[in-house]
Amino acid sequence: MPEVLFPLDSTKKFTEQVLVGHNRWHPDIPAVATVRPGQSFRVDCREWFDGAIHNDDSADDVRDAPLPIVHALSGPFSVSGAEPGDLLVVDILDVGPIPQETGPLAGQGWGYTGIFPKQNGGGFLTDYFPDAYKAIWDFSGQQATSRHIPGVTFTGMIHPGLMGTAPSAALLAKWNQREGALRATDPDRVPPLSLPPLPDGAILGSLTGADFDRVAAEAARTAPPRENGGNQDIKNMTKGTRVFYPVYVPGANLSLGDLHFSQGDGEITFCGAIEMGGFIDLHVDVIKGGMTTYGVSENAIFLPGNVAPQYSQWLAFSGISVTTDGEQRYLDSQLAFQRACLHAIDYLTKFGYSPEQAYLILGAAPIEGRFSGVVDIPNSCATVYLPTAIFDVDVRPSAAGPTRIKPGASAPKSTF
Amino acid sequence: MPEVLFPLDSTKKFTEQVLVGHNRWHPDIPAVATVRPGQSFRVDCREWFDGAIHNDDSADDVRDAPLPIVHALSGPFSVSGAEPGDLLVVDILDVGPIPQETGPLAGQGWGYTGIFPKQNGGGFLTDYFPDAYKAIWDFSGQQATSRHIPGVTFTGMIHPGLMGTAPSAALLAKWNQREGALRATDPDRVPPLSLPPLPDGAILGSLTGADFDRVAAEAARTAPPRENGGNQDIKNMTKGTRVFYPVYVPGANLSLGDLHFSQGDGEITFCGAIEMGGFIDLHVDVIKGGMTTYGVSENAIFLPGNVAPQYSQWLAFSGISVTTDGEQRYLDSQLAFQRACLHAIDYLTKFGYSPEQAYLILGAAPIEGRFSGVVDIPNSCATVYLPTAIFDVDVRPSAAGPTRIKPGASAPKSTF
Amino acid sequence: MPEVLFPLDSTKKFTEQVLVGHNRWHPDIPAVATVRPGQSFRVDCREWFDGAIHNDDSADDVRDAPLPIVHALSGPFSVSGAEPGDLLVVDILDVGPIPQETGPLAGQGWGYTGIFPKQNGGGFLTDYFPDAYKAIWDFSGQQATSRHIPGVTFTGMIHPGLMGTAPSAALLAKWNQREGALRATDPDRVPPLSLPPLPDGAILGSLTGADFDRVAAEAARTAPPRENGGNQDIKNMTKGTRVFYPVYVPGANLSLGDLHFSQGDGEITFCGAIEMGGFIDLHVDVIKGGMTTYGVSENAIFLPGNVAPQYSQWLAFSGISVTTDGEQRYLDSQLAFQRACLHAIDYLTKFGYSPEQAYLILGAAPIEGRFSGVVDIPNSCATVYLPTAIFDVDVRPSAAGPTRIKPGASAPKSTF
Amino acid sequence: MPEVLFPLDSTKKFTEQVLVGHNRWHPDIPAVATVRPGQSFRVDCREWFDGAIHNDDSADDVRDAPLPIVHALSGPFSVSGAEPGDLLVVDILDVGPIPQETGPLAGQGWGYTGIFPKQNGGGFLTDYFPDAYKAIWDFSGQQATSRHIPGVTFTGMIHPGLMGTAPSAALLAKWNQREGALRATDPDRVPPLSLPPLPDGAILGSLTGADFDRVAAEAARTAPPRENGGNQDIKNMTKGTRVFYPVYVPGANLSLGDLHFSQGDGEITFCGAIEMGGFIDLHVDVIKGGMTTYGVSENAIFLPGNVAPQYSQWLAFSGISVTTDGEQRYLDSQLAFQRACLHAIDYLTKFGYSPEQAYLILGAAPIEGRFSGVVDIPNSCATVYLPTAIFDVDVRPSAAGPTRIKPGASAPKSTF
Repeated sequence: MPEVLFPLDSTKKFTEQVLVGHNRWHPDIPAVATVRPGQSFRVDCREWFDGAIHNDDSADDVRDAPLPIVHALSGPFSVSGAEPGDLLVVDILDVGPIPQETGPLAGQGWGYTGIFPKQNGGGFLTDYFPDAYKAIWDFSGQQATSRHIPGVTFTGMIHPGLMGTAPSAALLAKWNQREGALRATDPDRVPPLSLPPLPDGAILGSLTGADFDRVAAEAARTAPPRENGGNQDIKNMTKGTRVFYPVYVPGANLSLGDLHFSQGDGEITFCGAIEMGGFIDLHVDVIKGGMTTYGVSENAIFLPGNVAPQYSQWLAFSGISVTTDGEQRYLDSQLAFQRACLHAIDYLTKFGYSPEQAYLILGAAPIEGRFSGVVDIPNSCATVYLPTAIFDVDVRPSAAGPTRIKPGASAPKSTF
Repeated sequence: MPEVLFPLDSTKKFTEQVLVGHNRWHPDIPAVATVRPGQSFRVDCREWFDGAIHNDDSADDVRDAPLPIVHALSGPFSVSGAEPGDLLVVDILDVGPIPQETGPLAGQGWGYTGIFPKQNGGGFLTDYFPDAYKAIWDFSGQQATSRHIPGVTFTGMIHPGLMGTAPSAALLAKWNQREGALRATDPDRVPPLSLPPLPDGAILGSLTGADFDRVAAEAARTAPPRENGGNQDIKNMTKGTRVFYPVYVPGANLSLGDLHFSQGDGEITFCGAIEMGGFIDLHVDVIKGGMTTYGVSENAIFLPGNVAPQYSQWLAFSGISVTTDGEQRYLDSQLAFQRACLHAIDYLTKFGYSPEQAYLILGAAPIEGRFSGVVDIPNSCATVYLPTAIFDVDVRPSAAGPTRIKPGASAPKSTF
Repeated sequence: MPEVLFPLDSTKKFTEQVLVGHNRWHPDIPAVATVRPGQSFRVDCREWFDGAIHNDDSADDVRDAPLPIVHALSGPFSVSGAEPGDLLVVDILDVGPIPQETGPLAGQGWGYTGIFPKQNGGGFLTDYFPDAYKAIWDFSGQQATSRHIPGVTFTGMIHPGLMGTAPSAALLAKWNQREGALRATDPDRVPPLSLPPLPDGAILGSLTGADFDRVAAEAARTAPPRENGGNQDIKNMTKGTRVFYPVYVPGANLSLGDLHFSQGDGEITFCGAIEMGGFIDLHVDVIKGGMTTYGVSENAIFLPGNVAPQYSQWLAFSGISVTTDGEQRYLDSQLAFQRACLHAIDYLTKFGYSPEQAYLILGAAPIEGRFSGVVDIPNSCATVYLPTAIFDVDVRPSAAGPTRIKPGASAPKSTF
Repeated sequence: MPEVLFPLDSTKKFTEQVLVGHNRWHPDIPAVATVRPGQSFRVDCREWFDGAIHNDDSADDVRDAPLPIVHALSGPFSVSGAEPGDLLVVDILDVGPIPQETGPLAGQGWGYTGIFPKQNGGGFLTDYFPDAYKAIWDFSGQQATSRHIPGVTFTGMIHPGLMGTAPSAALLAKWNQREGALRATDPDRVPPLSLPPLPDGAILGSLTGADFDRVAAEAARTAPPRENGGNQDIKNMTKGTRVFYPVYVPGANLSLGDLHFSQGDGEITFCGAIEMGGFIDLHVDVIKGGMTTYGVSENAIFLPGNVAPQYSQWLAFSGISVTTDGEQRYLDSQLAFQRACLHAIDYLTKFGYSPEQAYLILGAAPIEGRFSGVVDIPNSCATVYLPTAIFDVDVRPSAAGPTRIKPGASAPKSTF
């Protein structure tokens, strides 16, 4: 096991640890450690809400989830010799849940998926699912099941939802400018068009005083993926993956977190993955001048690992860029994927799932979401693939009609 | 080999065959044959431009491609007993190129991929690639190579780009209404926002006279995918696939065409697949009342076959919903996928490919395009995966830098 | 489609064709055609018994199968420039059943699997299955089903069971010597220990007269695999495979045949594959001096294609090298694999299959047979893996007990 | 993490632990714990030689390896309610190396593969490799590399080499009888034909005194796989696998050990896997009367997990049942597999590996060993498949000839 450079004590808050991480992007957040190219090291990760979501049967904690404090990130790790213009090579050697006893922190043998309410985060289908719901998943080795969603078992593809290098001051400024400009077009929208810097709740490592205040006022929120990688939520970035990140600041300043036991493409319920804390073993290297050599000036490129669970039969749904109200949109894959997901949800209700349970399955299980035709005006076509083997019953269409799951279990909904 | 219900003579035009197909969607196009549930049959298919694109080194034919005549569709096939509300079950038993001698028709041992010019069809990246280009691919059994794109070989996933049932009159009216409404918002746009009915070039099976004129004036173009399936361009709909289509008219009236030897997710160069004529063996069945039973009132659902070529190493690129001009868009997966594709193209140029060659590879090779994060405001994240084994050289990033392909070959560009 | 260098007319016997192949190995059998390195060409293949086995419900044809006439091989093809010491590179571009109408010849939409009687060929488990049985399989595109074995459907992995280069005179003499020496140890055994040259039934291409008689007296039977490749029955040698054969005579003299629609590892019922006639498209090349360069002086090496059907769930059985009478043998993987297969057969009978049906399934379906421990004295361990998805019922063990298939169908048994 | 029912302290010998396991099979070895059907629990496992093999550059420890003390097994675990005639259902929830700091015990970040000398264990090719060699493998997350074998990296398929239920007294007697009878046919053979009970070195859990002596005199060695499962060395029995074992004694008395980080089919160097200590999480259940219901009276059946590393390109070698001296044997798959492995070894030496390095690779890497033709008298055909991606250089044959690995590293050989 490689040396633990960023340990977390599961009994303490994220801010009470020996080393304190961060939950904003800024070039001036100090590194917690320096590693050399070729070094392997272990990093503990806290689940993104730092313990605010509980292993119980109420969704009130999802309803009230403290978005200002996300994401609890481990790092930054400075890589000696890395300079702007280089590519940082990050190998995910291993990643898993907290390897200690069962406990109250997500990752301690369990994780959660939430449907976030429209008032607090929303999600891919928030217009159809405006309320808060939760599902708790129990881990049994590599597999997940939920007492809130009967008849589903799948193998986890554990991965960090969020990993990236620190932005330069110029890049950060660009983010704040362009996201602010978008927000200004409809400043009162719910959910908002983008999230401004938010000093409230900011955690900035060892920064204090005036430095803290300055950085907190400028630092970018961690929700969106950006040029530095960030919250890409790519389910295939699992064990054995090699990622190449652009380097924007001396030392690269790599940070990561938001571990998922499993996730469907899109992470569609916003907190669509199975969220957990855990550990990740990394190996880093540097390709000098790689950004120019390979034309990678922004957004990670990567070689996924070769150990994803294999499913050989899939049930696929398609959607096009027409709204549920019948309005035609122009080549809109975002909408087409929404429609494909809604079709899958409608379908699963015929087997006895509630719409919310079906939505939670799509968020958490290893579904594949693919771009199909994207050029045939005016309709984009998107497809979503469900592995049939994750269901206890046969979910394929047949003349005999659907077999219904055992009734009883339901996903908790928040009160108001 | 099942009985050939729709034969095509490769030496004759699509309109000069014993049975004439169609290139518009309309409920009143007469069926060319009636099949019973449980029946297997073979259908010949003509490449979508009916021979207008040639196996040569000029892209002028792509520049001038006769869009009004697409897609040359085989059918409709009426399925006895199928009624509106049923699901039509279509098994793709086999599909392949024209199994005769080498010749001048795409499918006769070769196929083509075109970058369509902005003035005539455009494509996913038409703002960056406004001119016409072409690549000819030669088939060697299951594999494709191109004299216009060196150093690339891949295994075909042969599939019909277009298959679907006839719309009802009401559904057709809805299409015309909504697509017209969109077009009306910017009627002079190039490329247009949608395509109106177009009597010019219409082929409507055995219809003649006043019936022909009436139907030609109403019938929908075949380019976009819609509720009836249609031009979905799903590369995984290959041999062994079972598709379930909604039935909107008595007999279902299944039509199909636009065979592809291979295609990347998205078919991004518009004519991004390797286009060809060929044959397809189908088996049909009916699930009575299946649209209600399974909640499938629109858009095909399907079980992909299990014989796709296996690639175990992929090089992936990511993109977010920020334009190349730096403008922030809100959760736009269409844009994010464009950016991911542009990143892949930039990358491949470092190995010696021209941007157009790289664009053509992404259209034709079995690349995977996936939705990654779609909920993290304001950025959607999309990813595109290239199988590394299709390249003769090692395309993975390394400290040694890229190995350049042999120079020389180039993709033909049209004159002006 | 490449040029057909060896055409077969399905309405005529193998010996009545324009070009006549052969059914023995000998360096002096003249080539039917000469091809150059880099050339692609099509070869028609006759099923191994040249039409003696019929699409009916009697196994008498299997009981009386004319073993002296096997295998009907297409070739030899001389490769210009190939010399002893080279490696012949053979790409299997495509392979499939006879692409014409349904008919009485195996390959014309159907194929067969036989359990050969102990008196006429025997098989892997002939001591347990001494009588003749037959199953007819119908092809539906890529898939096979049998009216004699209910509840099983699988995707074919079409491949040539037999392909190889001609032996040199010295190599042929070695074969005859060593196989004769083995036979001499128990000359009256049934089945025999090996098969001597047999002029009766020999087909030797264009040879006639004294040459025919001399070669017929010396030529080796084609049943066993040997240094030149030959009847290896490797189910993974399917489309996209590249094989490297040692060259023993000028021109290499490649021959092939014994096409299988599908086969389980081991081809355990002797005629365990689904036998058929068909076509194969080949591309050949030469690595000069490759036998020494790569240390490949005997037995083919190969790169399997990447389009095998994918199954992600398997039910596996194990066996050890103890006989059914309880006798301990020393590290005998042949016996261990027999025991594993017998365990699989016993198991399948609990679901309603007859032992013969189960045996036929193991021969014809894409089962995997693997060496497990081979070093732990005194027991070798072998394992056999059945893809669960080929069965209509769930064949996994459970507390509920096995679901029995619908009774009725049975595999025909020969009369006596 | 499930409760640890069998903990091991890495700083202490196997016999000095709080709970002591065993290294022989006997029905009277007392259970270390009782579990109930439906229970999950963790078991620590010691590497099979209990620390006798070191992380150094000498193979003397392999030469002198204390075979009488193998295998260090954890257990037995009694399952409440399990009775003879039942099937014990064992799910492998998780399995991995010792999850603590780096240290001197195999599993603490490293493992070993040995070629055992003919005088002390031997191996599959001991007639060709009579001396002792060793390779140390370092674990980097899921991947293994060796300072003794350059240019090879592969993903581990961690699995228990040995797992099984206790034999009944009658079954044990049968083992001793049949193995003794075999041994009696050539009692002085080196290596021996089988291993008799051996009180020297026996570890029998909590047994003492006369009970110890009686059991030690009767108990079976653990090297061979037998009816109860045992040392099957099945590389696919990894995470997610469900195994069904016959139950021969009340409580079933499950034991296990011999963890492997990786192994090739056959484990051909005897200690061919990468040996290590570690942990395994199990879930057990019982199918009452399952042995009769499913016809499984001996030898485990299992459903492999779905998370094995995926390799899509393989280089395969074939062999037939002719000895290297040219003697023809009758349908001997053991010999055919030896010849296939020897061909692979010869081939790899052309790339710069020593024969011993190649042999060690075949033992430790995830190679596949398959039965090909097993019925074509007199030759069995066996094939061995190497994933090409595990090598740093391209190991496919080409006209350019082999690329040699960097010289320097070698596998340590023992002194004499």
